[in-house]
Amino acid sequence: MVVYIDGEYVKEEDAKVSVNDRAYVFADGAYEGFRVYNGKIFKYEEHKTRFQRSLDELRIKYVIDNEIKVIYENLKKANGYVNETLFFYIHITRGQSPRTHEFPHEDTPAGIYAFLSVKELNMQKYTEGVSVCTVPDNRWARCDIKCISLIANCLASQIAIDNGCPEALFVHDGVITEGTRTNVFFVKNNEVYTHAKTNRILAGVTRNTVVELCHANGITVQEFPLSSDKLVEMDEAFLTGTSEEITPIVQIDGKKVGTGEAGELTKRLQKLFKDEVAKCCY
Amino acid sequence: MVVYIDGEYVKEEDAKVSVNDRAYVFADGAYEGFRVYNGKIFKYEEHKTRFQRSLDELRIKYVIDNEIKVIYENLKKANGYVNETLFFYIHITRGQSPRTHEFPHEDTPAGIYAFLSVKELNMQKYTEGVSVCTVPDNRWARCDIKCISLIANCLASQIAIDNGCPEALFVHDGVITEGTRTNVFFVKNNEVYTHAKTNRILAGVTRNTVVELCHANGITVQEFPLSSDKLVEMDEAFLTGTSEEITPIVQIDGKKVGTGEAGELTKRLQKLFKDEVAKCCY
Repeated sequence: MVVYIDGEYVKEEDAKVSVNDRAYVFADGAYEGFRVYNGKIFKYEEHKTRFQRSLDELRIKYVIDNEIKVIYENLKKANGYVNETLFFYIHITRGQSPRTHEFPHEDTPAGIYAFLSVKELNMQKYTEGVSVCTVPDNRWARCDIKCISLIANCLASQIAIDNGCPEALFVHDGVITEGTRTNVFFVKNNEVYTHAKTNRILAGVTRNTVVELCHANGITVQEFPLSSDKLVEMDEAFLTGTSEEITPIVQIDGKKVGTGEAGELTKRLQKLFKDEVAKCCY
Repeated sequence: MVVYIDGEYVKEEDAKVSVNDRAYVFADGAYEGFRVYNGKIFKYEEHKTRFQRSLDELRIKYVIDNEIKVIYENLKKANGYVNETLFFYIHITRGQSPRTHEFPHEDTPAGIYAFLSVKELNMQKYTEGVSVCTVPDNRWARCDIKCISLIANCLASQIAIDNGCPEALFVHDGVITEGTRTNVFFVKNNEVYTHAKTNRILAGVTRNTVVELCHANGITVQEFPLSSDKLVEMDEAFLTGTSEEITPIVQIDGKKVGTGEAGELTKRLQKLFKDEVAKCCY
């Protein structure tokens, strides 16, 4: 695989970065993950806007222009992709400087790393649903920033794997916030619930699309945190994410959600989301 | 400067690491900072024990043997240091793997980066004291792990700089926890206060040494969080850290601490700490 690092396109195994890059010693950077269907980036503007906001909130002085698309096109060409379903990762760091907590001089060039890889939707999980477990939300207070400071997410992901689950749900102050790399929705009496857009969640592009689809299709959505003791009462649950689209949750902490199968409203939203993808990319 | 990266000693400008190192994309590593006086590492065992604990808590399967000392000796030689006051930084990461949150295979070799640089005590700050400001403690819930996930510390450090202060104090749930790279102590009626060893602070080696010195010298220490509204009542305050040793705080958020000069008990502890350094390293 050919990747992009600080201005160059190189083989993954040759892609190296200075030890002085602040991403390496401080997690000092923001990232974004894009989905590519049929050669087209899905919801590009929404991702770009969020990426810029993350950089702004981290006070990384970098204004995104058209380079994301240029890097994407070059990586696509260099790797010989045509119309595969792809995942496009890009991060921008505060650049290189000797290790000291305060920011380096404003003129320090940002670091940029990107890769583009094939990532098909996992159809088994998509149709049959997944089991998840809950974990304490140990993350920092700015989960709304898509920062590469992901150690808490990694540790929680591994707890999920250890419990035989592909994903875990964070519990913060007694409420479900989101997954380690997804947002989470619940359904009760045909109404949809998801955590409000606060500093405790990363408002996913897929999450926001689902909320819009609900509004457009007469489905009531409550953007409000769900108390973790109400999990057992839910009729349906699903994850949303760039890679997961809308993936049903059929079990939480070993207990069935509703019937223990993908819910009807979940399936309806999967269909509405697929239509949205088709409209944008096909 | 010659640094150490993954088994090699190379010039700083040639020191590069794979973009697949999990430190670069996930902040997935632990670090330690040692002080070297007169060619000897101060409190080596305490730092090593803490480093191993950080690795264990992050579930990085790496057992520290004697390599820290070997790397230190080699860096000292390669850089031609003799008996300068030095700062020795080393971090150990979960190694290289394609980007995915869950841990890579257990056999994945850890990544190691280290540098050794001259860092004299800042005598002006040490004698005259410093001004600090308070900032919200946005960090994750495992501040007891010395993890390279330091974005919240970097942002807070920059707020301090923007306010003309070399350091900021974190306020979490209404209490002072610690500085962005230091611990903090207060003095009231000749009693010393510092935050208890909980998940909200990184119990510094210097902090622990100061607590021990208090015990050994008949100075009462209360290891308990200080409510931020009591800051104004304090007679003295000081920072402790590997690089700062014991640095007086003379102003907090623009308000004088006590007389606005380094306090008497602070100066006594500085002297006791210097004696401890002399005992260990000279």
